[in-house]
Amino acid sequence: MALDRLKQAVTHVTGIGQPPHPFDPLSETEIEKAVAVIRKEYPNVFFNAVTLWEPRKAEMMAWIKDPEHTPRPHRIADVVCIGAGSKVFDGTVDLDEGKLLDWVQTEGVQPLITMEDLQIVETVVRKDPKVIEQCGIVGIPPEDMHKVYCDPWTIGYDERFGTGIRLQQALMYYRPHVDDSQYSYPLDFCPIYNSDTQEIIHIDVPKVRRQVNKAPPNNYHAQAIEAEGGFRKDLKPIHITQPEGVSFTMDGRYISWQNWKLHIGFNYREGMVLSNITFNDKGNVRDTFWRLSLAEMVVPYGNPEHPHQRKHAFDLGEYGGGYMTNSLSLGCDCKGAIHYMDAAFVNRAGSPITIKNAICIHEEDAGILFKHTDFRDDSCTVTRARKLVISHVFTAANYEYCVYWIFHQDGTIQLEIKLTGILNTYAMNPGEDLHGWGTEVYPGVNAHNHQHLFCLRIDPNIDGPNNSVFMVDAMRGDGEVGSKENPYGNAFYAKKTKLETPEQAKTDYNGATSRTWEMCNEGKINPYSKKPVSYKLVSREVPELLPKPGSLVWNRAGFARHAVHVTNYDDTQIHPAGRHVPQTSGTPSQGIPQWIAANPSANLVDTDVVLWHTFGITHFPSPEDFPVMPAEPMTLLLRPRNFFTRNPCLDVPPSYCSVPSGVRQGGALVDGISRLAFGGGEKKDGGKGCC
Amino acid sequence: MALDRLKQAVTHVTGIGQPPHPFDPLSETEIEKAVAVIRKEYPNVFFNAVTLWEPRKAEMMAWIKDPEHTPRPHRIADVVCIGAGSKVFDGTVDLDEGKLLDWVQTEGVQPLITMEDLQIVETVVRKDPKVIEQCGIVGIPPEDMHKVYCDPWTIGYDERFGTGIRLQQALMYYRPHVDDSQYSYPLDFCPIYNSDTQEIIHIDVPKVRRQVNKAPPNNYHAQAIEAEGGFRKDLKPIHITQPEGVSFTMDGRYISWQNWKLHIGFNYREGMVLSNITFNDKGNVRDTFWRLSLAEMVVPYGNPEHPHQRKHAFDLGEYGGGYMTNSLSLGCDCKGAIHYMDAAFVNRAGSPITIKNAICIHEEDAGILFKHTDFRDDSCTVTRARKLVISHVFTAANYEYCVYWIFHQDGTIQLEIKLTGILNTYAMNPGEDLHGWGTEVYPGVNAHNHQHLFCLRIDPNIDGPNNSVFMVDAMRGDGEVGSKENPYGNAFYAKKTKLETPEQAKTDYNGATSRTWEMCNEGKINPYSKKPVSYKLVSREVPELLPKPGSLVWNRAGFARHAVHVTNYDDTQIHPAGRHVPQTSGTPSQGIPQWIAANPSANLVDTDVVLWHTFGITHFPSPEDFPVMPAEPMTLLLRPRNFFTRNPCLDVPPSYCSVPSGVRQGGALVDGISRLAFGGGEKKDGGKGCC
Repeated sequence: MALDRLKQAVTHVTGIGQPPHPFDPLSETEIEKAVAVIRKEYPNVFFNAVTLWEPRKAEMMAWIKDPEHTPRPHRIADVVCIGAGSKVFDGTVDLDEGKLLDWVQTEGVQPLITMEDLQIVETVVRKDPKVIEQCGIVGIPPEDMHKVYCDPWTIGYDERFGTGIRLQQALMYYRPHVDDSQYSYPLDFCPIYNSDTQEIIHIDVPKVRRQVNKAPPNNYHAQAIEAEGGFRKDLKPIHITQPEGVSFTMDGRYISWQNWKLHIGFNYREGMVLSNITFNDKGNVRDTFWRLSLAEMVVPYGNPEHPHQRKHAFDLGEYGGGYMTNSLSLGCDCKGAIHYMDAAFVNRAGSPITIKNAICIHEEDAGILFKHTDFRDDSCTVTRARKLVISHVFTAANYEYCVYWIFHQDGTIQLEIKLTGILNTYAMNPGEDLHGWGTEVYPGVNAHNHQHLFCLRIDPNIDGPNNSVFMVDAMRGDGEVGSKENPYGNAFYAKKTKLETPEQAKTDYNGATSRTWEMCNEGKINPYSKKPVSYKLVSREVPELLPKPGSLVWNRAGFARHAVHVTNYDDTQIHPAGRHVPQTSGTPSQGIPQWIAANPSANLVDTDVVLWHTFGITHFPSPEDFPVMPAEPMTLLLRPRNFFTRNPCLDVPPSYCSVPSGVRQGGALVDGISRLAFGGGEKKDGGKGCC
Repeated sequence: MALDRLKQAVTHVTGIGQPPHPFDPLSETEIEKAVAVIRKEYPNVFFNAVTLWEPRKAEMMAWIKDPEHTPRPHRIADVVCIGAGSKVFDGTVDLDEGKLLDWVQTEGVQPLITMEDLQIVETVVRKDPKVIEQCGIVGIPPEDMHKVYCDPWTIGYDERFGTGIRLQQALMYYRPHVDDSQYSYPLDFCPIYNSDTQEIIHIDVPKVRRQVNKAPPNNYHAQAIEAEGGFRKDLKPIHITQPEGVSFTMDGRYISWQNWKLHIGFNYREGMVLSNITFNDKGNVRDTFWRLSLAEMVVPYGNPEHPHQRKHAFDLGEYGGGYMTNSLSLGCDCKGAIHYMDAAFVNRAGSPITIKNAICIHEEDAGILFKHTDFRDDSCTVTRARKLVISHVFTAANYEYCVYWIFHQDGTIQLEIKLTGILNTYAMNPGEDLHGWGTEVYPGVNAHNHQHLFCLRIDPNIDGPNNSVFMVDAMRGDGEVGSKENPYGNAFYAKKTKLETPEQAKTDYNGATSRTWEMCNEGKINPYSKKPVSYKLVSREVPELLPKPGSLVWNRAGFARHAVHVTNYDDTQIHPAGRHVPQTSGTPSQGIPQWIAANPSANLVDTDVVLWHTFGITHFPSPEDFPVMPAEPMTLLLRPRNFFTRNPCLDVPPSYCSVPSGVRQGGALVDGISRLAFGGGEKKDGGKGCC
């Protein structure tokens, strides 16, 4: 019975149609094909990425509009390879024609670090005599080198080493036992690793030395909890079942649910990519967004001492949110009836590999959708909400990022991100003054202040690609109290500032005015409100980038200088900190600042634009975040405003509905449990609802 | 079977122990007793409120500490009565002794409007010749007066009529059919009603007249939806079941759940009141908050034209969040295994009345509680979260407010409020310029801009009553890029400003610095971080009060002038806009401004303080909010910081746990579905988790 339920509850698809949809990620077969084409001409390169070169927007829009009479966009692979001597090659392969379209050696860049790049460093570090020497200095004898671990980040940028050599910095840890959490035992020195030669080329050693922590392990695995008294026994099960299955349908990687339809893509860099998102408005299929993705992020740490300025991971651009994605499990990551999608990548050797269950799709009950009771007679309508959740979880060394795209019946799209996992930590001496740059979260463990700043790429398509963006502030009306225009001083309104050029569109958050940004189609006016149809970005977790203007992070993470940037659409502008992020110096700043500088006064009005939104949190650690952090959620909304002529979910069956005339309506709509709650299946009080 | 499940799923208590706990709301019997005591001496008064006069804090803390040797606080009723000529009496009755303790006639105030006060106005309005005349002017013939409705708000304040007479303003509507939503048919004039004489004393008539709307009805009841094509049929059921029941236990109105314990009170004014909230920290029962409640709110509307300046409802102080509470239903308002509590009030005649199922208590699955995967070997721990939700829903004429107090396993307390119901609307002529003060949400319907500003009363008890409050801002470190102290410009820290006096503690929100406020016990230092134990208020929906300084709303709603006020604890200071709110002029401003002005430089450091937090949203309506608004959520958190020495929920059984040594741990902890997902109950891959 339980097994049956499981079988029913889990469905699984490769998510590739036959033939693949132009938006589909490359299949394993396609990856193999791309590799074969390249191998024929360049047999000695390693593969960094083989991913979908997305069809150009104009071509794709034309094909979607009239697939019968428009050439189907070719399947093209976007390839990054690495040759001897840290040489980087960028290429494209036409898979339909089986031919190499482009192949260039790109100078002065380093592509991202793959999981394979990460894995090898620990082995090298453990054998390096200078590392062994440093370990000895902090109290780890040579025979314990197998207990030494490292999280091998990209170097970020270090002015001493520049961009020419592919480098990683090894954040060092120690584990008394293989199962102990290493983040309680950070080491104080930092080896620099050359990925090309696979050797340690330098070690950054602090002036003040710190011995390896002597505190007992601080673990959260089951054995440790059991040794401390065991698990709590007072949680009763909650079962979530969907005996008739899910309410969505899949056509390849297109999902249809509650008037929404969209394509779910995935790549090694951004993870989930949602494309061609439409809403069926009473038979009229309306465009909302052409493409939504988390396009970049940066995690600057706030300790000014060398070499901590290098700790500012671009987790997507330097490692890849797709590459780091978890294989998800029913009952662990998601509950209910789950639909999974796999993700296929290339490995260093050029073979396709697949992460099973990379994307989880499921529905959840979402509480009250709407409700109103008439106080005169208690007549009442109450309708429950459902939401669709499309999620993936990725592990960036110590941290976990859980990304949830949530679709609501009222036309709202929500992005929720939960942060969990483990704080990045650094060694400290007993009683050491941390100067406010970090917190002692456990004896001998300093967790540095940091920010998690995400860059959301929003390509609006509000009833078509020609859109404009307005900044909206809640403002007091003109005129002082007692004036003719504002006699009682209560006037207020939404001040809308049109963002006409990329330079002017660099805008910051203002909490006091509840600032939002509206993406409008000025060519489509709501017949009731006479305002342009729009979607509004409502985002409230919008800290400033705290590293100063001119600092390394500020230079490298140009996207994070403002809450919002707006640019003209360009097929090649996907990555807000640049295509290849590791070891960029930030001078000049890649990505958004570069694009804007190229034409700061370009027209953004009534044209195809992209809105880049940076949001996130500033985290001052505390002991309750350790040894593993309870999930901290943050969220933002894309809400339809003046888009519909009416609440678009009035036709969701209510749980209960009675009207003043005393006729109980919609009896058949009320679900079993609700009907029972209202009195054994029959409503006996003629509409005097107890709702 | 379904009925069995229902029986199992719903439990219900009166929530009054024997004898009642000193925090318990008055029972029906106690209300009767209080009324009898008063009736004996004052037989001709009407009852406005009979509620618990809460035990004084010092007395109550002493009794809780040592109930065996401390006198039990008496049960005392707090009574408001109204006599002929709008005379107001405030009194207290000792129920243990059956005697009247206090009885004073209070001059110049008006107590709140009850549901009974509301009901009568419509009848009077329909018969008033001047109202009938006005209806004729806007196109409603005398024979249709039964189709005329009103929402009879308090008058708020009108300088022409002052405070002496008890007044209401009748917001007028029309219904073509009794089941039609009246908010599509607002009328343009506003009668003023004298509650004492039960007559219309004045009608405010606008200069520009507007005929009653001719648009067809805009309804959301089942019959209307069926007539338009019916309900969507593609939603499959989601069942949420708890076959072993809930994970909490009740002792009277004390609830214990996942280390939390607290008392759930309820009164006519604030609705839910949570008292004596403790967290069992590994056997050490620690105080967190003495009392939490939504204490007041105001909804200012932004149209400056007379008489719309009067539209700024104090829904708690002028009507009562408890009085307006809904009777909740399984499957409509909540799902799963539900525990309900009733609420007892007095009616005008002095009889006790009970709203069944006023409070809903239930648990929900809450996604990932924490997760970490080691990228080296995919060893992984993932644990799912549970939350406890204590909720009530109240209807304030057109709007619904759904209030959810949510307790998390990690020590976080969350307040979530969902707004639904119907926009307040006003008449407009075709093509009328609304000057940006409102939106035409349906032909002929003007929904004015407004704010919903809530005042949360937080009485912290962070390891005891002596607390201090700090304002915390994320700030850049000193020193420019290249300076000795900040060479790379990446330094940032949490700047903590101690709020030492009530005057200094008037503080506003700052989104750019992610401002929070910490309630600390400076006498208790976290042994790891060396910082005071604290709870942090994290609130991001904090607009400014938009009515200007000196305006009517600014004067009356003093609490809303700043995001945070801090005052010294005073047993009598519960209501931030005053005990009796209707018809206050705001000069002087009642409640918080008055209390602070009495001693602006009082010491707030390391003493018993109360933090008042005003938060909410500014709402610029749009057509998708009409004819009934999809629920709009807002939320805030009280998060433990430096309170625990460790993540306090590590002992929640994980869904899955594997460790690098390859030993799969906690096998018995994994629930059935997860075990199946991991391979038929046995983990076969030696800890290489697919988690």
